[in-house]
Amino acid sequence: MNMKTNLTYGMVGAALDSFIGSVHRVGAGFDGIAFLAAGCFSRNEEKNRKCGEFYHLDMNRVYKNYEEMAEAEGKREDKIDYVVISAPNNAHYKTAKAFLENGIHVFCEKPLCFEVEEAEELKKLAEEKGLLFLVNYSYSGNVMVKEARELVRQGYIGDIINVNAEYLQEYLVDDIGKGDQIMVKLSSWRKDPEVAGISNCVGDIGTHIENTVAYMTGLRVKRLAAKLDYFGQPLDLNANMLVEFDNGAHGVFCSSQVCVGHMNGLVIRIFGTEGAIEWHEEEPNVLFVTKKGCPMQTYHRGMGYISERAASMSRIPAGHPEGLYEAFANMYKVWNAAVLAKANGTELTESELDFPTIDDGIEGVKFIHAAVESSKKDAAWVEL
Amino acid sequence: MNMKTNLTYGMVGAALDSFIGSVHRVGAGFDGIAFLAAGCFSRNEEKNRKCGEFYHLDMNRVYKNYEEMAEAEGKREDKIDYVVISAPNNAHYKTAKAFLENGIHVFCEKPLCFEVEEAEELKKLAEEKGLLFLVNYSYSGNVMVKEARELVRQGYIGDIINVNAEYLQEYLVDDIGKGDQIMVKLSSWRKDPEVAGISNCVGDIGTHIENTVAYMTGLRVKRLAAKLDYFGQPLDLNANMLVEFDNGAHGVFCSSQVCVGHMNGLVIRIFGTEGAIEWHEEEPNVLFVTKKGCPMQTYHRGMGYISERAASMSRIPAGHPEGLYEAFANMYKVWNAAVLAKANGTELTESELDFPTIDDGIEGVKFIHAAVESSKKDAAWVEL
Amino acid sequence: MNMKTNLTYGMVGAALDSFIGSVHRVGAGFDGIAFLAAGCFSRNEEKNRKCGEFYHLDMNRVYKNYEEMAEAEGKREDKIDYVVISAPNNAHYKTAKAFLENGIHVFCEKPLCFEVEEAEELKKLAEEKGLLFLVNYSYSGNVMVKEARELVRQGYIGDIINVNAEYLQEYLVDDIGKGDQIMVKLSSWRKDPEVAGISNCVGDIGTHIENTVAYMTGLRVKRLAAKLDYFGQPLDLNANMLVEFDNGAHGVFCSSQVCVGHMNGLVIRIFGTEGAIEWHEEEPNVLFVTKKGCPMQTYHRGMGYISERAASMSRIPAGHPEGLYEAFANMYKVWNAAVLAKANGTELTESELDFPTIDDGIEGVKFIHAAVESSKKDAAWVEL
Amino acid sequence: MNMKTNLTYGMVGAALDSFIGSVHRVGAGFDGIAFLAAGCFSRNEEKNRKCGEFYHLDMNRVYKNYEEMAEAEGKREDKIDYVVISAPNNAHYKTAKAFLENGIHVFCEKPLCFEVEEAEELKKLAEEKGLLFLVNYSYSGNVMVKEARELVRQGYIGDIINVNAEYLQEYLVDDIGKGDQIMVKLSSWRKDPEVAGISNCVGDIGTHIENTVAYMTGLRVKRLAAKLDYFGQPLDLNANMLVEFDNGAHGVFCSSQVCVGHMNGLVIRIFGTEGAIEWHEEEPNVLFVTKKGCPMQTYHRGMGYISERAASMSRIPAGHPEGLYEAFANMYKVWNAAVLAKANGTELTESELDFPTIDDGIEGVKFIHAAVESSKKDAAWVEL
Repeated sequence: MNMKTNLTYGMVGAALDSFIGSVHRVGAGFDGIAFLAAGCFSRNEEKNRKCGEFYHLDMNRVYKNYEEMAEAEGKREDKIDYVVISAPNNAHYKTAKAFLENGIHVFCEKPLCFEVEEAEELKKLAEEKGLLFLVNYSYSGNVMVKEARELVRQGYIGDIINVNAEYLQEYLVDDIGKGDQIMVKLSSWRKDPEVAGISNCVGDIGTHIENTVAYMTGLRVKRLAAKLDYFGQPLDLNANMLVEFDNGAHGVFCSSQVCVGHMNGLVIRIFGTEGAIEWHEEEPNVLFVTKKGCPMQTYHRGMGYISERAASMSRIPAGHPEGLYEAFANMYKVWNAAVLAKANGTELTESELDFPTIDDGIEGVKFIHAAVESSKKDAAWVEL
Repeated sequence: MNMKTNLTYGMVGAALDSFIGSVHRVGAGFDGIAFLAAGCFSRNEEKNRKCGEFYHLDMNRVYKNYEEMAEAEGKREDKIDYVVISAPNNAHYKTAKAFLENGIHVFCEKPLCFEVEEAEELKKLAEEKGLLFLVNYSYSGNVMVKEARELVRQGYIGDIINVNAEYLQEYLVDDIGKGDQIMVKLSSWRKDPEVAGISNCVGDIGTHIENTVAYMTGLRVKRLAAKLDYFGQPLDLNANMLVEFDNGAHGVFCSSQVCVGHMNGLVIRIFGTEGAIEWHEEEPNVLFVTKKGCPMQTYHRGMGYISERAASMSRIPAGHPEGLYEAFANMYKVWNAAVLAKANGTELTESELDFPTIDDGIEGVKFIHAAVESSKKDAAWVEL
Repeated sequence: MNMKTNLTYGMVGAALDSFIGSVHRVGAGFDGIAFLAAGCFSRNEEKNRKCGEFYHLDMNRVYKNYEEMAEAEGKREDKIDYVVISAPNNAHYKTAKAFLENGIHVFCEKPLCFEVEEAEELKKLAEEKGLLFLVNYSYSGNVMVKEARELVRQGYIGDIINVNAEYLQEYLVDDIGKGDQIMVKLSSWRKDPEVAGISNCVGDIGTHIENTVAYMTGLRVKRLAAKLDYFGQPLDLNANMLVEFDNGAHGVFCSSQVCVGHMNGLVIRIFGTEGAIEWHEEEPNVLFVTKKGCPMQTYHRGMGYISERAASMSRIPAGHPEGLYEAFANMYKVWNAAVLAKANGTELTESELDFPTIDDGIEGVKFIHAAVESSKKDAAWVEL
Repeated sequence: MNMKTNLTYGMVGAALDSFIGSVHRVGAGFDGIAFLAAGCFSRNEEKNRKCGEFYHLDMNRVYKNYEEMAEAEGKREDKIDYVVISAPNNAHYKTAKAFLENGIHVFCEKPLCFEVEEAEELKKLAEEKGLLFLVNYSYSGNVMVKEARELVRQGYIGDIINVNAEYLQEYLVDDIGKGDQIMVKLSSWRKDPEVAGISNCVGDIGTHIENTVAYMTGLRVKRLAAKLDYFGQPLDLNANMLVEFDNGAHGVFCSSQVCVGHMNGLVIRIFGTEGAIEWHEEEPNVLFVTKKGCPMQTYHRGMGYISERAASMSRIPAGHPEGLYEAFANMYKVWNAAVLAKANGTELTESELDFPTIDDGIEGVKFIHAAVESSKKDAAWVEL
C-alpha cells in the first residue's frame, strides 16, 4: 500500500507583491510536504505570468481566472490537492464555491464571505462533496494560543467570567475626516464596500478577536452591543463592543485602525474563577498565566512545562522567537496532515482537525453582521 | 502683614489600623505645612482615644462623633482649617455637611455621597459659605497624570477620538458564587449596600477611571451603556461599559474586582488624531507618549522634557520612584496652598485650584448611578 | 514602668533645597515615632536659620556648625536621640565622630567616610560608647529587597553561582571630555575629590550595588578587577568590574553616570543552582523570581505569598506603588525601633537589627578603594 | 545575455532531527531563489538516506561523507553553487577546506574552526579560489540589528563609550557539579572538547555577543579579561569578561548556560556620547533608541521611520512578529544575492556584501582563544 506523503496546491490571489501571499507560500512549504503547482495570482496578465515563472510552474497551470483554474484543475489526474484563496474578500465566496464544485479542498482567507447564506451554502457544498474547508484565522496557529486553549481545557483558570480583548492598529489614522480623498495604502481595498464587504475594521481585525477568543476558550459570542466609528468614511475604522458569551460571561472587544502607537496589537485576556491568561500577538512566544492569589507566571514556548499538544507545534528552542510565518506554518502543518489523512482514507485525529473550519467562518460572518447592525441601532444588543 | 504659612486639620475616620488613613496623614504633612490637630477617628472609643494619643493630640479635640467635632471645632478660635473625611461612604454626606455648616473647608474621600441631590446640596452649601471642597480622586496627584493633561492641553495628541481605560483588581474573586457567606477582607464594608451605596466595583474603582480620564482630557462622559456582573452578591464585582464623551468620541471603561493577576491595574489610554498617551498607576513614574507615525516614547518623571506644570509637582530625581503616598502628598500640596491662599485672602491661582472639586464629586455620583441604571436596563444608554 | 515610645533627632546637612534632606525628614517621621528637634542644616547662616524656622525648631537648637551641635546636644537632658548626617562625603567622618563622642547614635549617609582607618576608628568608638550606627544603604529598605533576602535564606534559589548587577545613570554624560569646564548639576560636589573622595561613580552608586547584593545574598566581595573610565575628569564616571565573592561565585558590577537612557537603573540579578531573583529599583514593588525549569514569576509587594518578614514592612495594598520615600521610611522604621529598644534597655531583636551597620559601611569604603586601586593597576585583582 | 536567477546548494550535517538544519533549509529557500540539490546529512547511513528522500533529492547526490561530496559536486557541470556546513564544530575546518578546494562557495556555521591558523588558511584558500565565505553569525540577519548599525553609522548615538552585552541561558544549570554524569541534552556535543573545541559557553554563545556588537558598532575587541566558570565540567558554562575596544571604550560581555530564567537572552546595549541603543534577541522586532536627555523610543520593524537599508530586509508589516527563521532568511537573502552576483560576474554591492565574512570568523576564533587563555591566567588581559 502506497500512502501519499506529499501534496500540491494552487493559489488564487497572492501575486509577488502581496506580503500575505509570501507568508502563505512560505507557510505552506515550511515542512517540505506541500508544493505549489498551479495558480491564478492576479487579474493583471503580466503579474500573473511573472509569478508563475518565478515559481517555475508549468505555465499551462497558470490560469487567467479562477473559474478556468477550478475547472481545469478539477479535471486533471494530478490535480492540486487544495486551493489557497488569498484574494480580496469579495472573491472568497465564488472562488471557494468553484473549487468545491470541482472536488478540491479549500484553504480560504478570512472573512469567509459577505453573507451568512453564502457561508452556509459553502458549508453544505463542502459536506456534500466530502471536502475539507479551512478559514484562515491564523492566530490559532501560534503555539502559545494552543497552550492557552489547553490550560482552559484542563480547568486551570476555572470557569470563565470575563474576557477583555483588543486588536489595535494605527495605520489608518490619517483617514479620519478625509472624506472622499481616501488615502491609498497597503490595503486600500479594505476601505471599499464593494470589495471588503460591510465592514473594514471589524471585518479585518475584529473578527480575529472573536475567533481567537473562541479558539482559546471554546466560548461563542451569544450577543453583542457595538459602537462603530466611521469618521466620515464608508466603512468603520474603530469599534468598541460589549459581548456576552454562551456561558453568560461578559466582556469587551475593541478593534481599531486609528489607535496611534499600536501596530498589530492583538491582546487577549481571559479571566476565570481560578486564574487568568493573557496573550499578545506582538510577543507571541510568551503567555502570561496567573493562578488566583499567586504571582503571574511568564510561560515560554519551548520549555518543558508546556503541554504536549502545544509543544508538538513548537519548532525551535525556547527563547528563539517564532513569528507570523511560523504561525502560518502551523496552520498548514495541521491542514496538510488533514488533507493527507483524507487522501489516504484514514480517520482524522483530533490534532489533524485542530484548525478553524467553515463553522468558524460562518460564526465570523455572523459576528461582523451583528456588529454593524448593532451599531446602526445605537449599540442595541444583537444576537449572533 | 502676617501671612499664614501653616495649617491645622482634623480627621473623621482613619484610625490607626486604616491603611488609607496613614496615607492621608503622611500626605497631608509631607511638606511641613499642615498639622493634625483634632479628630474623630473611630466610633470605637478605645481606638479613637489611642489614635489621638498616638498623635499627641490635645485630648479635648478627640471627639466622640463628627457632629460634636464639627460644632466644637467651629466655635474654637484656633479651629482646624480643614477636615479630612476618610470614613466609609455612607458617612460622607452628613459629615461634610456638618463641617461646612460650621465653616470648615472639606477634603473628602470619593465617592462624594450616595445621591446626586445630596451632592448638589453640598455644593450649594460650600458656595454659600465660601468654603473649599476637594473630592479625593487621588490619581490626579500623580506627576505623570498631570503631564498627560498638559500634553492634551497643548494639542500634542490632536482631537481625542477614542479612550480605553480600565481598573482591574483580583482581590474579591473568591466572592463569586459565595452567596451569603461573604468573605471579610480588607474593605468588607464595600460590599454592604447600607455603607457603600448602590455600587461596590463602579463606586470604588470605576469612578476613578471616570475622573482620571476627565482630568487628563477635559472630556466628560455624556452617556454610557454598562453591564455589571454581581455573581450572586448584593453589589457589583465587575463592570464593562461603552462610553460616549461630550465631544462625540467613544471608548470603553472596564473595572473589576475579580480579574486574577491584577492588583491595582488602573490603565488609561487616550487616543487622538495626532498621537496617544498611556498611563499605568502601578508604574506611575512613566508615561507612554506616541506621536502619529513615530516610535513610542517613554517619558520619565523628573526629566528635563517634562512640562513646567508637571515638573513643579515632582519631588525626587528621575528614576527614583514616587508612589501612592507622593500622589496624596501632591493632592495636599495643592489643597494646602489653596486653603492658605483662602485664609490669606489672596486670589487662588490656576495651580492652587488644580484639584478635583465638588463638581468632580457630583460627576462621579452621576456616573455611578448611570452605570447601575444602565445595567438594570440591560445596558441601555443612560445619560449622565 | 514608663517605656519610651517617641524619639527626637537632629540633622547635619539637608537644608530645604536638598532633595535627599526632604526624603530623610519625611522618612524619619513617616510612622509618627521620631521628631526633628535640632539641626545644623547649612554653613550658610541664612539657609540654616530658614530651615530651622520652617520646621518650627527651638532656634537655640539650630547650630552654626556640627561641633557646637554635637557638644551642646550631648549636654542637654532632652538631647536628640540620634543625628542624621546628610552632608557631603567629606563631612561624614568628623561629624559622626563628634556625635559618637557626645553619646549620640548616628544615622549616616553612605559612603561612610574616605579611609578604611577612619571607618574602623568610628566602629571602635561606637562600640566603646555602646552606640548604634547605621550607614544609609537605603535600598535595603525596599520590601522586595527584603523578600529577595528571605528567598535566598530559605534556599529557594540554591547555592549562588553568578551575580550580575548594575547601576546606570545618564545625568553626567555631558561631562565627557569637558575638561576643566565641569558642569554644575544637581550634585556637583560629587565630582570634586576634596568633597567626594577618591571616586564619584563607584563612590556614589557602585557602592550601592555592593551593599544591596550583600544584603540580598549574605555574600561579600572577596576581590575585584575593575576598569574605571574618567573621560578627562578628576573622578570616575563609568566603572565595569569583575567580582569574586567569598563563596567562590563570580559576577559583574557595572555602574555608570554616562549611560544614556538610564535614570536610576539599579538592577540586581542573583543566579543560583535552583533559581534566580531579579530586582529593579525603578520598579521596586515587584520581584522576578524563577525556579529552575519553571516560568518566571512576578512577585508583587502586598500579596499573601510574600514572606512574613518582608510583608511586615509593606504599608499599602498590592498594586499601589511604594517608592523611595517609603524605602527610607522603612530604614527609619527599623532604626527607630532599634534606638527605642536601646533606650528602653531591651534586647534588640533580629528585625530591629535589620539595617546596614557600620560593618557595611567599612565594607563599602574597602570596596571603593579596591575599585580605584584595581583600575590604576589596569584591572588587576585587588582583595577587599 | 542570460543572467542566472536561481541557485542550488548542498548541506553537510543538518539531518531531519536537527532543529537548526530545518532553520537553514527554510531560510535558504525562503525567497524562492535557492534549492537544495545535494547533501551529506548524517554519518548514520539511514538518517542520511531518509533526509535525502524526504527532500526528493537525486539519491546520487546524497553522499556518504563530505570528502566524497566535495569532490563529486566539484566535478559536476550542474554542481551546487554553495555548501551549507551545519555539522558540529570539529567538522567545520576540514569540510570548508574540501569544498573550497573543489571550487564551491561556503556558508559555514559558527564558530568557524578551532585554531586561528586554520581560519587564516581557509581565508587564504577562499581568496586564491575567488570564493565567497560566510560565517553564520545569524543575529546580524535581524532587521533591527541592521537598524542599530545604521543608527550608529549615521552618528545618532555619537562616539561609543561603553558596551554592555550578555547572552544568558539556563539550559545547562543541571550540569553544575555533576562531574562525569554529564546530562545528555539538546546539544550534548557542545560539552565535549573533541567536538566543540576549547570552549562550550564562549564558543557557542559568547562569540555571538562579540560578532553582534562588532556588526552593530564597527568596533573590534582589542583585549579582554575573562573569568570562566567550569563547575567541574570539561568546558566552561559561565563567562564574565571585561572588554576593551579598538576605540578605547570599555564594556562587559557576560555569557552563561546556567542562568535560571533566561532562555536565549542575547541583549546588546551600546552607549554613546549622544545616545544609546538596546536590542533583545527574544523581542527582535523592536529596538530601544534613546537620544541624550530625551525619552527612550521604541522603534518597530516595518514602520516608516526605519532606515532604508534596514527596511529593505523587512518582510511583513509592523507589529507582525518576525523571528529566528526570518533572520536566517535574511542571511540567505544577502548571501544568495552575493552568490548570484558572483555567478553573473557583476560587482558585488554593499548590500550584497552585508554578511559576516571569514574575517568575522577569524575574529571569533581569536575571541574564544583569548577568553579561555585570559581565564587560565586568572583574568589577565589578553590581546586578540
